[in-house]
Amino acid sequence: MGLIVQKFGGTSVGDIERINNVAGRVIEEAGNGNQVVVVVSAMGKTTDKLVEMAREISSSNPSKREMDMLLTTGEQVTIGLLTMALIQKGHEAVSLTGWQAGIKTEALHGNARIMDIKTSRIKELLDNGKIVVVAGFQGMTEDQEITTLGRGGSDTTAVALAAALKADRCDIYTDVTGVFTTDPRYIKGARKLQSVSYDEMLELANLGAGVLHPRAVEFAKNYQIPLEVRSSLEKESGTLIEEEASMEQNLIVRGIAFEDGITRVTIFGLPSTRGTLSGIFTELAKNHINVDIIIQSITDEQTANLSFSIKSEALEETLRVLEKSKCMAAFDRVETESNLAKVSIVGSGMVSNPGVAAEMFEVLADSGVQIKMVSTSEIKVSTVIEAQYMVGAVEALHVAFKLDERSAVKA
Amino acid sequence: MGLIVQKFGGTSVGDIERINNVAGRVIEEAGNGNQVVVVVSAMGKTTDKLVEMAREISSSNPSKREMDMLLTTGEQVTIGLLTMALIQKGHEAVSLTGWQAGIKTEALHGNARIMDIKTSRIKELLDNGKIVVVAGFQGMTEDQEITTLGRGGSDTTAVALAAALKADRCDIYTDVTGVFTTDPRYIKGARKLQSVSYDEMLELANLGAGVLHPRAVEFAKNYQIPLEVRSSLEKESGTLIEEEASMEQNLIVRGIAFEDGITRVTIFGLPSTRGTLSGIFTELAKNHINVDIIIQSITDEQTANLSFSIKSEALEETLRVLEKSKCMAAFDRVETESNLAKVSIVGSGMVSNPGVAAEMFEVLADSGVQIKMVSTSEIKVSTVIEAQYMVGAVEALHVAFKLDERSAVKA
Repeated sequence: MGLIVQKFGGTSVGDIERINNVAGRVIEEAGNGNQVVVVVSAMGKTTDKLVEMAREISSSNPSKREMDMLLTTGEQVTIGLLTMALIQKGHEAVSLTGWQAGIKTEALHGNARIMDIKTSRIKELLDNGKIVVVAGFQGMTEDQEITTLGRGGSDTTAVALAAALKADRCDIYTDVTGVFTTDPRYIKGARKLQSVSYDEMLELANLGAGVLHPRAVEFAKNYQIPLEVRSSLEKESGTLIEEEASMEQNLIVRGIAFEDGITRVTIFGLPSTRGTLSGIFTELAKNHINVDIIIQSITDEQTANLSFSIKSEALEETLRVLEKSKCMAAFDRVETESNLAKVSIVGSGMVSNPGVAAEMFEVLADSGVQIKMVSTSEIKVSTVIEAQYMVGAVEALHVAFKLDERSAVKA
Repeated sequence: MGLIVQKFGGTSVGDIERINNVAGRVIEEAGNGNQVVVVVSAMGKTTDKLVEMAREISSSNPSKREMDMLLTTGEQVTIGLLTMALIQKGHEAVSLTGWQAGIKTEALHGNARIMDIKTSRIKELLDNGKIVVVAGFQGMTEDQEITTLGRGGSDTTAVALAAALKADRCDIYTDVTGVFTTDPRYIKGARKLQSVSYDEMLELANLGAGVLHPRAVEFAKNYQIPLEVRSSLEKESGTLIEEEASMEQNLIVRGIAFEDGITRVTIFGLPSTRGTLSGIFTELAKNHINVDIIIQSITDEQTANLSFSIKSEALEETLRVLEKSKCMAAFDRVETESNLAKVSIVGSGMVSNPGVAAEMFEVLADSGVQIKMVSTSEIKVSTVIEAQYMVGAVEALHVAFKLDERSAVKA
């Protein structure tokens, strides 16, 4: 008898029919003789609706504590309904809110980290033959304040529970069948990976592969919890995420992530005085502008040019912040280029293959694509190119790195 | 500086505009230099929508524990939103769920009684200058299970908090401006009472006056909490409910309650054996049929005729239960009469005025109304009559007992 943690996202529990379907998947796992803990998100668009109401009351800056009070109701509705469905189907089941499940977080509203999980109540329920349904995304501080874990919080709840309960497996059910070499909605040759390593998944998750939140992957890596990303609707096996991807070891590049809506901002004639650079990025961070790739080029001893990439929707705010800091930073002028895209190759095999970046650049050059920016890590090379070439570039890279060659994982 | 508990029902917090309006009422009270605890219900039709979802999953008998898990989210949404509104308007405010507010209940889902309230957290917040917004209708058992207080539960939460906090006043805000001598929607001469006693309010509440739940009135009576029923939209003062109605003492009859949709069921030839009567009513109670007035008439030494009144919608189920118990009770036959109404006069002055019931019967006889059933208590006389005469009878009684003579309470 094993202990399995299952996590179902908002789409998987989007309506009553789907909740009944999820109940079926849970019962299947319990029927295999396993103890099952289920973590669920809020139904479909519930969270969006709650946020909208809050913004009607306080458009600028609703209290974070009260936002947590409001938003945690979403998951509480789902656990109630899913548990009713399990009971209706003849199974003993009990729902638990985050605080009832013993999930203790730091005292930070809106984006708290889990500090500890008191598992005694869950364990007792499991030992009494109950299926335990836990509200994702939420916890409680030492002072009995309700907190939320921020974006992707339900993934984190599931992985943290799996770690605390020493679960045999943590299955992340979502609306795709697994992690793909690249986005199958755009690239025909995309295929599902049988396995990826935590680090690869982290890069893919950060690059917008979107199936699993980076914090959850980090947590799984720290506690060595094997994760499986799989579909809540299809029965086929998904993608295993574990320490060392056991299959397809020879594949240097494991996946290609891409996104458009990128803008490059270039600041000309920035004085090379100490603190100017950090001053600018501190200002941007204070205003919640996420800067991705940063490139600095020295023009002479006194000044430098600085380029960085942002999401295009943050452009207006970025320019506002730069204008404000102009007196402090005293640069010449700002230029921007929009309609750009980021294309990244990811693979832990890269670290021992120095030629991978060069090969990527060559493929792009052969496709007539100009590279605007480059950023590299041990297991990733990111390039910024014109958005019109994005899909073509990904297709060319997908073929060049032989990602389409292996047959899809058997269902 | 006083301590005021304010309670706002579902209609008063039905949308964002109304929540903002409620915030204004709360701030007004706080602006008078009072400490304020606010108790709120779920927004408008929220509870109905949640119940509907539950019934989609489990039409017959959804788990009561999970219903509590589901329904308590309704009030949690309201406290979050109202607190945001208070903060947005520049006031320090904190929301608390039932369990955070220290409301301990017995271990009974769906209809738990409050056992104790640990007020330390609320007191600390009040002492720190905060407005405290508490979710009505909910509490927690010793085992950290979430419970609800049943119908009218938010009224009970408010009164219980007022008792535990030794509040100076508990204001129940609703969609009417107070307690009336009779229902102003039907009777033109109906006027608002300045005050009623707890006992009178109990009779009026039980008789369907509907502004305040009987459990809350009982609680207020036990702890001697003065209540004021008033409108959340109008500024005029409402009706005070206290131990001895201080005004209008000379008024023997304080109010007239009425409802139609009543059916009389008569069982003929019921054996006068010990236990037959209790057997029948036990069966009816088991099937959740509320029996109101009961009249037994002896026909001879062996058998009796038994009449009782029920809500007409319970007739089918009642006949089913009686059919089933026929073999046990061995009565002759059942007859029913529908399209009846109950009209009751209420007033604590009755106890020392034995002629009141007779006067009522006389007024009805003069109006050509036949009395089908009668039931009396120390402060109430109820009659069952044909529904077509209901409004006319109430009008005649309202005039006869001089309820329309005093001018309306000044705004």
